[in-house]
Amino acid sequence: MRMMQRMLHDDVCDALLVTHLPHVRYLSGFTGSSGWLLLRKRSAVLLTDPRYREQAAREVRHARIHIVSGTTMTTALGHGLLRTVDRLGVEAAHLDYVTFDNLRTSLRPVRLVPMIDAVEDLRARKFPDEIAAVRRAVRISERVWHEILPLLQPGVREFEIAAEITYRQRLHGAEGDAFPPIVLFGTRTSLIHGQPSAARLRNGQPVLMDFGCRVNGYASDLTRTVFLGKASRRLREIYIAVLEAQALGRDAIRAGLPAADLDRLVRRHIEQQGFGPYFEHGLGHGLGLEVHERPSLSWRNTQPLEEGAVVTIEPGVYVPGTGGVRIEDDVLVTSDGAVTLSRLPRELMEL
Amino acid sequence: MRMMQRMLHDDVCDALLVTHLPHVRYLSGFTGSSGWLLLRKRSAVLLTDPRYREQAAREVRHARIHIVSGTTMTTALGHGLLRTVDRLGVEAAHLDYVTFDNLRTSLRPVRLVPMIDAVEDLRARKFPDEIAAVRRAVRISERVWHEILPLLQPGVREFEIAAEITYRQRLHGAEGDAFPPIVLFGTRTSLIHGQPSAARLRNGQPVLMDFGCRVNGYASDLTRTVFLGKASRRLREIYIAVLEAQALGRDAIRAGLPAADLDRLVRRHIEQQGFGPYFEHGLGHGLGLEVHERPSLSWRNTQPLEEGAVVTIEPGVYVPGTGGVRIEDDVLVTSDGAVTLSRLPRELMEL
Repeated sequence: MRMMQRMLHDDVCDALLVTHLPHVRYLSGFTGSSGWLLLRKRSAVLLTDPRYREQAAREVRHARIHIVSGTTMTTALGHGLLRTVDRLGVEAAHLDYVTFDNLRTSLRPVRLVPMIDAVEDLRARKFPDEIAAVRRAVRISERVWHEILPLLQPGVREFEIAAEITYRQRLHGAEGDAFPPIVLFGTRTSLIHGQPSAARLRNGQPVLMDFGCRVNGYASDLTRTVFLGKASRRLREIYIAVLEAQALGRDAIRAGLPAADLDRLVRRHIEQQGFGPYFEHGLGHGLGLEVHERPSLSWRNTQPLEEGAVVTIEPGVYVPGTGGVRIEDDVLVTSDGAVTLSRLPRELMEL
Repeated sequence: MRMMQRMLHDDVCDALLVTHLPHVRYLSGFTGSSGWLLLRKRSAVLLTDPRYREQAAREVRHARIHIVSGTTMTTALGHGLLRTVDRLGVEAAHLDYVTFDNLRTSLRPVRLVPMIDAVEDLRARKFPDEIAAVRRAVRISERVWHEILPLLQPGVREFEIAAEITYRQRLHGAEGDAFPPIVLFGTRTSLIHGQPSAARLRNGQPVLMDFGCRVNGYASDLTRTVFLGKASRRLREIYIAVLEAQALGRDAIRAGLPAADLDRLVRRHIEQQGFGPYFEHGLGHGLGLEVHERPSLSWRNTQPLEEGAVVTIEPGVYVPGTGGVRIEDDVLVTSDGAVTLSRLPRELMEL
């Protein structure tokens, strides 16, 4: 929080209204589903509603708690919390237009200053305790992955495996899933974001599992693709192309490298193997309190990667009617390379 | 979708850009995590990215699919999709300020018209297939509730029970949790939105379980509070006050009654029992593709309830240091009363 407060430059705004919940949590510790954090240079106030009275008192650090009852947070802000504030920074990417407009009207003469990426940029570089939390989440997901392999038997359904993943992650100490597990069999593996169905596993089919969990709010996000019995020649070729591309990405990543360059390097390998049109998503994304956060490893992000970022590396090839393969690891970017946080086997597995 | 298109009055706007995902799903059937629906009087286009190419083709009804690749959806909109559109309605409550501002700038000379509640109002009144889906979700949650009771033994942890709820709802046919299950023991039951911890259940403690699941996207949302062994006198008093208040609410609800009046009726009973200051949330909320949707059963909503609305009725009393009790059912509002969709027992249970 102190670091954020130091960033409140007098020439831009006198205070910042943090409305994006992962940012509220990051800066104050508050985990509730309704809360705004008003940051001033030498003080901070968390606004929430009476449902979170007890929880806020337990969780919030370095901020006064203001329970808003019988009125809206916008009105509460206007009633005395903004004395001496002329320009209020707002998270313009995390405030809907109606709320923005209400704030603008009700807080007059305070002027709203749309701020972009103020907290995002701070969050991209992880502190050791954040990295440790991601690592613990990765360990839990890996343990579950190993437990799931023997359950991949002919006849089992996609949603049954998904239910096992969710259940086991939680029992092994996760707060919950980082996102609903993706479990796909057979040709359904080409659905990049498909949801588990009642489809049953048959011999010779690929199994794509993409899942993660949360520890202290921090997410893991891992994908492996395995085969029940022998993989077809075509899927083997796809697997090897993805495996090689993913290794290229993990080898090349380092602080200072533009994200788009890394994406291009990996993508070129997949193109050279003839699968270019079938890799239609970005190479990866930042991972932390959100499953998709800065930095994006996309062809659109020309910014150099920062030391301390935690990102996924997850190339994939998806051929409709044939199937898809994705291999995803979580890595920590360092000055001279990266530490791969996940340790699941990557070689082609035929169960 | 036809109904929505008929609502595009020429005098307000020529087309509506639907950006809130539950609305996109409601109108088009698309369930992906990234999609905008452009509605015109006689046509509709769903914009999504290549990850959803196959899925969109399977799911989307009554709309052309436009895959946006290598550019943003805002840019794609400007490239030919808005011919003859002068005024474009946008979901101002579901569009962040940055995106709104980008649309405004890039789509010139098209003018943006902020629309409020356009789709929300349509969705408040449920169709029979929507009610059937909620009912199926309720049945699954109820089945799980009965299965959970024997697991409430001394020593079990809150998160273990939560894991069992999630697992069993899914195995019994739900698409997943409607929200992370709330499972609280002992004095922690006073945390209105508390999350399950490692706390262990002890004899004499209250157990509050608030959970739901999804069927075809539609949510259930049920709460019961039971006791392991004998309840304290104080918690018994609280239980009876909440039980009576909840029955009052279920008896009084009917189409045409202002939501605030219903809230007041129930709240007054709790006040008369001396627990007024400990009931600090609204009486209930609409339930459908979202867990909290129109209509809100709050003291702030003076609108009359509509026939066909599905809402929760969930008064609660939460005394810090003592504990909390909430009883929540899902009901369908009819012209002469309501149908309670949930059938779990409500009397005080001492296991």
